[in-house]
Amino acid sequence: MVRLYLASRNPGKVSELRKLGSYFGIEIVPLDLPKVEVQSESLEYVSLFSAVNAFLTLRKPLIVEDSGLYIEALNFFPGAYSSFVYRTIGIRGVLKLLEGVENRQAYFKSVIALAAPNLPEVKLFTGVVYGVIATEPRGSRGFGFDPIFIPEGSAKTFAEMEEDEKNRISHRGRAFMELAGWLADNCSKVMCYSWT
Amino acid sequence: MVRLYLASRNPGKVSELRKLGSYFGIEIVPLDLPKVEVQSESLEYVSLFSAVNAFLTLRKPLIVEDSGLYIEALNFFPGAYSSFVYRTIGIRGVLKLLEGVENRQAYFKSVIALAAPNLPEVKLFTGVVYGVIATEPRGSRGFGFDPIFIPEGSAKTFAEMEEDEKNRISHRGRAFMELAGWLADNCSKVMCYSWT
Repeated sequence: MVRLYLASRNPGKVSELRKLGSYFGIEIVPLDLPKVEVQSESLEYVSLFSAVNAFLTLRKPLIVEDSGLYIEALNFFPGAYSSFVYRTIGIRGVLKLLEGVENRQAYFKSVIALAAPNLPEVKLFTGVVYGVIATEPRGSRGFGFDPIFIPEGSAKTFAEMEEDEKNRISHRGRAFMELAGWLADNCSKVMCYSWT
Repeated sequence: MVRLYLASRNPGKVSELRKLGSYFGIEIVPLDLPKVEVQSESLEYVSLFSAVNAFLTLRKPLIVEDSGLYIEALNFFPGAYSSFVYRTIGIRGVLKLLEGVENRQAYFKSVIALAAPNLPEVKLFTGVVYGVIATEPRGSRGFGFDPIFIPEGSAKTFAEMEEDEKNRISHRGRAFMELAGWLADNCSKVMCYSWT
């Protein structure tokens, strides 16, 4: 069993990542650390920076996860600033920006950064899911922009899916699968056995 | 004469701050430093962090200036993320978000952070200007959201004003006046005579 601390204050994110961990025998322990975020349009940079900072406080194996919604017709707004945009103009604002816009292509991207005492550097794992922005919000599960994102190959929004169903195809699920795969391959090298 | 380096890549900002400096006998020398920005909704925190970082590289008296547009009806979006929002959804996007919205109150805020070898801490100077968001862009001067901001007591947008006229009432002009006033009062204490 590998235990990973998770620096996050977002209950939806914590719930999904704990569930994802349970599929792979990884125990995710949420942790309420003050978060210093770099202002950058690169999710990779944001999560790398957060992981380094959290690690300097904690000194134990940990992950941070950052994600964003990228809307093609809006020059990939809101991207790395999705949570701020969600809290200000919200879903209604994003739908208003897309009124009369034909191209509704978008993608969600997730970056998980892993830091641990016996890792020589922060490891990054990414996941992407393509889809379209719905014309109105549907569903009440998930969090953030889930009610307006319809992943490719589905008729439902993320907010209309059970957590398991969303996890199987979501950006976060895909990033987590990369992390789990890497841990399975590299545990002996980085001494995961001491991570419990 | 006091010489202050200015860490900025924004030509409009550089031009205004050089002009503002010239009113007060302060020479502003633009400098192209790589900028690490903290992701924070607090302009104060962003500019403080940038100033510390720039100072670690430069070790000479310098300022950084950060500003944002805060729109009341949009929960103060775009705020500290104004430049990202300008580059993605732009002026058109902001006007679309305000379509049919009666409350068009907004303010611009500027924070100037000063760091120098013989200052015991970074000093912050702020300036605010209240106004309303125009229903359509007007004017071609200034930069950013200037074409849609009409300051209180004026019929013109910032982009319809000469630089001098804007500087007299703008958030940036007000923050700079605070800085200039502080320097006038404290130069002997912090040895500004060595800042040339």
